[in-house]
Parts: sequence; structure tokens; C-alpha cells
Amino acid sequence: MYKLPRGMHDFSSENINKRNYIINIIKKNFEYFGFEPIETPAIENLSTLTKKYGEEGEKLIFKILNSGDFIKDNKSLFKENNYKNIISTISNKGLRYDLTIPFVRYVVMHKHKIIFPFKRYQIQPVWRADKPQKGRFREFYQCDADVIGSKYLWQEIELIQLYDEIFTQLNIPILILINHKEIITGLLEICNIDNNYWNNILIALDKWYKIGLEGVKKELLQKGIPNNIIKYIEPFFLFKGTFKEKIEFFSKKLNSSNKVTNGIKDIKFVYNKLQEIGLNNTLELQLNLVRGLNYYTGIVFEVMPKNKNYSIGGGGRYDNLTHIFGLKNISGVGISFGLDRICILMQELKLFKNIIKYYPKILFINFGNSEAIYAYKLIKILRSKNISAELYPKPIKIIKQLKYANKKSIPFIISIGKKEIERNKISIKNMILGKENEYDNIETLIANIN
Amino acid sequence: MYKLPRGMHDFSSENINKRNYIINIIKKNFEYFGFEPIETPAIENLSTLTKKYGEEGEKLIFKILNSGDFIKDNKSLFKENNYKNIISTISNKGLRYDLTIPFVRYVVMHKHKIIFPFKRYQIQPVWRADKPQKGRFREFYQCDADVIGSKYLWQEIELIQLYDEIFTQLNIPILILINHKEIITGLLEICNIDNNYWNNILIALDKWYKIGLEGVKKELLQKGIPNNIIKYIEPFFLFKGTFKEKIEFFSKKLNSSNKVTNGIKDIKFVYNKLQEIGLNNTLELQLNLVRGLNYYTGIVFEVMPKNKNYSIGGGGRYDNLTHIFGLKNISGVGISFGLDRICILMQELKLFKNIIKYYPKILFINFGNSEAIYAYKLIKILRSKNISAELYPKPIKIIKQLKYANKKSIPFIISIGKKEIERNKISIKNMILGKENEYDNIETLIANIN
Repeated sequence: MYKLPRGMHDFSSENINKRNYIINIIKKNFEYFGFEPIETPAIENLSTLTKKYGEEGEKLIFKILNSGDFIKDNKSLFKENNYKNIISTISNKGLRYDLTIPFVRYVVMHKHKIIFPFKRYQIQPVWRADKPQKGRFREFYQCDADVIGSKYLWQEIELIQLYDEIFTQLNIPILILINHKEIITGLLEICNIDNNYWNNILIALDKWYKIGLEGVKKELLQKGIPNNIIKYIEPFFLFKGTFKEKIEFFSKKLNSSNKVTNGIKDIKFVYNKLQEIGLNNTLELQLNLVRGLNYYTGIVFEVMPKNKNYSIGGGGRYDNLTHIFGLKNISGVGISFGLDRICILMQELKLFKNIIKYYPKILFINFGNSEAIYAYKLIKILRSKNISAELYPKPIKIIKQLKYANKKSIPFIISIGKKEIERNKISIKNMILGKENEYDNIETLIANIN
Repeated sequence: MYKLPRGMHDFSSENINKRNYIINIIKKNFEYFGFEPIETPAIENLSTLTKKYGEEGEKLIFKILNSGDFIKDNKSLFKENNYKNIISTISNKGLRYDLTIPFVRYVVMHKHKIIFPFKRYQIQPVWRADKPQKGRFREFYQCDADVIGSKYLWQEIELIQLYDEIFTQLNIPILILINHKEIITGLLEICNIDNNYWNNILIALDKWYKIGLEGVKKELLQKGIPNNIIKYIEPFFLFKGTFKEKIEFFSKKLNSSNKVTNGIKDIKFVYNKLQEIGLNNTLELQLNLVRGLNYYTGIVFEVMPKNKNYSIGGGGRYDNLTHIFGLKNISGVGISFGLDRICILMQELKLFKNIIKYYPKILFINFGNSEAIYAYKLIKILRSKNISAELYPKPIKIIKQLKYANKKSIPFIISIGKKEIERNKISIKNMILGKENEYDNIETLIANIN
């Protein structure tokens, strides 16, 4: 009867514990790397959100109705039946669609208080009226780290190390793919491909993992890219080899383009420094990594779990994002973690098995009001020692109280009835091992329980 | 130019650290008391939200526009100019307005999976299109703990202990006010006051702190309550005395009412048990504590900072909340923490002064690419030992790099240039004490920094 809206989900404590396990590792590393948290409100003005996410993205923004009886004040408007005019009159706010645009808005709004280079991280939910599917909801968390105000490639090196470190700590082996906008645009320039085709080519290339080379070629032909051009660029995308071999091949074959030369210089710098510092995971140069190339301007990255063909993180260098809010010449670079996908993946890989906290949690059997007071005095001490403890709320049959403990997987039971109070002993039962121990006082019990 | 919508706020890392300090103490204690977290989505169906918050509350719900061109499909509707009909056609979702209704909806939806009594906590933002004022925003966090499925008064005792413990740990001395719905309704029955007046009386009494006794009396007269009745109930609200004296006075004067007798029995039980267990703060019986008495059914509480007259928390027993979603006979009781007000109060009382973490945070001076590699190898080790460390991104003048560290209050600086690399020493400067120390290797540095 009472349902949730499409694409919305409740989270049980089990879900939350899993998500928090991942978030804590991400957060901790963000902070060790010198990033500091900010948060922006869920509701932004539509003037901030529109014209930022492309035509398709914009349709997915959840719009909020203005307050008050706006129809009374706009009678003539409603007679027009013009959808766009009506919408812009009755709604001027929307829900956060990603963390990048609010971050850029934040930087521009607070620029006088910010110390640049500004390293911020942000972990908050975003909302998109997208078609729900496996691992894609209409409300989901994004985890972003960005540096704004420094053009130096050391930032890219830092961010790759951040990916490497976090996924190592999560026990997920990954491939870190890297590419450069200028290598791609240089290649397209060499081919003399009209600018207007670029977007279509990038869209086709982006589907490589899904539709394969043949699919990409088919789509390129359909979009009007001549066959000889496809033939020319094909070897660059198909070239197999180590990172170094790829770099050599590209720089030899494409040295007529300054852009390619620049791009390769950047990639080489980042690769060489990372080799010296050391990475746990593999870095791969991947020319068909082209997602977001409409607003990225330099190096781009993407993270894929080893032997899987989907992304669990991505990012890149953007030189012009603060431009759109009127602040020029501030370059930024950032990465993002796909929290929901990471969570699903870890579940598949059974990586949560050993991490779900098994902490001492004690249920006191309720024998009635006078024993309850005795119990509560002990419970108070236990809680002050960071041990979760509770009294069953009702003095019902013991078997029923034990059933509750069992269903809730509470590992320890303490039963203190009149007899135990007289004897002045505390006995505790470990429900997992089925073992009972008796102690003289609560302090020795605490010393032995951890 | 780019503004935030009214009542919305950005949070800087300083704000977030303060809020998280409070949240962590609340959360920790919730867990030690046996509560487990749940989360519900920001967006709920309007059918879940409407008719729950009263007429005034309902106006403050942020409504979300349905997707798609709904005007094309509803041309005739828009000609009608009927505000309510139009709204219900173009919007069927709204933003979370509190945590109680979504929690009750959660319990009803997942009842087959839940083990009762169900002790849940929930810490999430809610949104209200309220008039913004000091300490009241349109987006704010609520922190709630509720037990559902147990009528026993031990729950009330637990929740008062939870308040007591959390505010003790936050260093905020408080008064915990307690009242009982049945004492109030019994009193009104004795006076033979028509049911229809009750709500007005409660509303007037609720303003006691703001408008004082004379204000309340004036409002009651305006609402048509006869003077002799005001005279009759006045002494109960004015009675000064200890908790015990109040109980004796009320039970003697009002023993003709079964309701009052029941209410006093509950209050007495809770008070006596808490005396035995022990409380750090004062518990006070306060008859003019009447907020929410339209849906609370038993004991109600409110927390006020000592010597202030505003609330920083409240709650009570509700027997009928799951009713509205079709699930009968499930009693609940819960408390809530006013996070924003607690934060403002702690700032006023300068309670954040000693808690803002001073953790080892190190900036490495950037001398150029070859020294950077040397630095990064050390930075990697530091981070793996939970120390936040970063290299300044650009090899600019040292004085400028030091300025950055100073502005960002980074406490430690390591400068490793060519000379230091040759000498194979690491020297670190404590910017707060102005002291420099030299170490043979990074491990001894780490051992001495904490």
C-alpha cells in the first residue's frame, strides 16, 4: 500500500554498515592526502544547475515546485499551454544532480575566503530522474575529491595514488586507465575530421566496452565518418603493448601534431613519476577512454575492477569549469568513486565477510523491576566502557527473550535473577561458542570480554 | 551573482568538523544503547507525507515536479485554474519533512523482516519551506532514536538516560523536563472543558516560555475559556516544589481523575527508577510541557540547556502512529536532538575550543621535480601511518609556500632540498612552537611526532 517512489530505496543497518565501511576508508585517505570536507545543500537554484549537464542530463534534474498559489498570479500563462514557460514560472529550484557543479559554484561564491590550491572532498547523495536499473538508483551517493587552483601535474599523480591506495585498502584489484584529451583531439585533427563530427566519434568510442570494435566502426560509418579515416585511426585504438611501447608508437606516428606531443609529454611525466614512487595496481594508457571529454581538458582517468568491464571511478583535468560561473583561469582536477557499484562488487567478491564488526553486544534478561535496577547499574558501566548493552524491555518468558537475542545475532547474554544477585556473581553466556563464564564483578568481565 | 536558495547553506570543513563531533557522540551512544541505524530516501510519495503534519506543516513540504510534459496531457485541467487539482496532477512526490513519518512508513513496509521491539536511530537532513531565522534553516539535520513495539516504561527510562549521557559527554548541563498526556487531559476533563477547546489551551500553554503566565491567561480568555476555569488550573501550573512534592500535590488534588492517577503512576515509576540508577542532570516535572500532545499519548520529554529557555531536544510516547499506515497496536516512543541549536549553543559556550582535533599534518616544501620524488616516498610512508601529508604542488618561492601553510594552519613543515637528500637527514619544523628537529629517518620522525 505505502510504496517508495521509483528508484528510491530504504537502507537497513546492514546496508549502512557496508556503505560506511567503504566511505570510512575513502574519507580517511582523502584526509591523509590533505583534502578537507565541504557540503553543499540538496536544493540549488535552477539557474545554477541548468545548461551544465547537456540536454539529456538536464531532463533528469528533479525540479521543486515554488511555494504559494502561483496559479492565481499567473492565470494568463496557464492559458498559453507553453510547457517551458509554465515550468520556469512555477519552479526555480532543483535537487543536486552531481557534486562538481555545486563545488564550482561554492568556489566562485566563497573565493575570497578560500586558500588556493583548494583541495576539497565531498560525500553526499545526488538525485537523477534516470531509468532505474541494477546498481543505478535515483538517489545515490557520490564521493569526489578535487583540487582547484593548481595546473601542476603532481595533482594528477596524487589522485592516481589516491585511487591506488583506497582500492588496495578495499581489497579490490583494479586497472587504472589513463588518457589525454589532447592526444584524441590531435589525432582527429591529423585526420582532418570536421569539428562537428568529434562529438559523435567520442560517443561511439565510449561504447567500445559494450559494443566492441565492430560496433564502434558500424556506428562511425552510420554517422558519416568515411571508411578511410576509420582505417587510419583504427591501429591506434587497437595497438597492444606496454605503457612505454604505446607511448613510443603514438609519439612516432603522430609527431606532426603539437597537441599529441603535449598530451604524450604529460602522460609520460605522470607515468614516470608514478613508476618511481610505486603503485600497487596497473596503470594503462587507453585511447578509447573518452568519457567526459567535452569538459575535460587534459589527462582523464577511469578505474575498472580487474577482469570486469565497467567503471567504478573516474575523473580528469578541467581548465574551464569555473569559467561558466564567471571566474577565469582556475584549473581543476578531480576524481570520483562509484559508491553503489563498489558496494555491489564487494558483495559479489564476498569482501564484506570479514569486516562486519563483531563487537561485544550484550542482552540482559529481564526478570522483573527489582532485578532490572541491578541490571541497569551494570549496563551503565558497560556502555561507559564502549560496550553496547541493553535490557530486554519486558519480563516475559526467558525462552522468548533468548529468541529475540538469537534473531538479532546478539552474541552475549547476561542473566541476573534474585539468586545471582544474592551470590554476587555475574555470569555471561557466549551464544556463538555456547560457553558460559562467571565473574566476580563487572570489571573483570569487561577485561575478559574483548 | 550565483546565490543559494533562501534558507540553504554551504558547510565549510570547520562547520562539518563541529557537526561531526556532535553527531559522533550521539551516534556512539545510540549504538551503545542498542539502537541500529536506518536511512530512508530524501524523496517520498506525497501520499505518505500528506495529512501527517497538520495544515500548517503541510504547506511547508517541498513538492517535486513530475517528469515529462504534463501540460500536453492535461490541457483541460489547466483551464480550470484550480490550484489544488493542478498541484496534485503535476506533483506526486515531496522531500522528507521529518524522520518520524518515514520511519513509521519503513516499519509498516518492512514489518515482516523487522524484529520487534525495533530500536532504530536515524540521522539525516530534512527540508521545510519555513521562514528562515537564527538557528532555523530550510535544510537541517534531525537525529532521532525510537523504539517501536514495546509499551514498557523501561524504554522511557532508557531514553532519559540517553539524553543524560549524551549531553554530559557534550559538556552541556541540561534540564530534562517530563510531563504526561493523561495528566493534562485528566485535568481538562475535571474542569469540564469542552474537547473543542483543548487544542487552543495546549497551543496557549506551549507559549508559556515566550509570553509568560499573563500572556497565556490573556490568550485563554481570548479563546473563550472562562476565567473561573483559568483560576482552577492556574495553581497546578504555578506550583513550585521538588519532583516529589509536585507528584504529591497533583495526586492529592486531582485523584478524582483516573487519567491523572495513571499519568502520575507512570511518571512516578520512571522517576523512582532513575533515582536508583542515577542521573547526572536534573529531571523536572513540568505541566506546561505540552508540545506534540496531539499525537503523543503518554510521557513526553523536552531538553533545555540550563539557564536558557529554548529546547534542544524532545520526544515522547506515541501509541497510534503506525495506525495511520494501517498497522495497529504497536506502541512507540522516541527522542530527537536539535543538532543545529546544539551546535550554535556549543559555539556560544566555547565548547568547541578544546575539541578541534590538532593532528599531525605535514606540508613538504616543493623544491622541484627530482626532490619531489624523494618527498613523495616519505609522504607515502607518513600517510600509511595515518598522518596527513602533502607536497606543495608547485616549486615556487619558499616564502610563498610557507604562507600557504600558515594560512591553512598546517602545523608541521618538512623541507628537503638537494643538501638534505645528500646528508640523508629529515628535519621538521613545528610551526606552532617554532621549533625544528632533525631525524635520521622517517620512522624515528613518526615515533616523535605524535
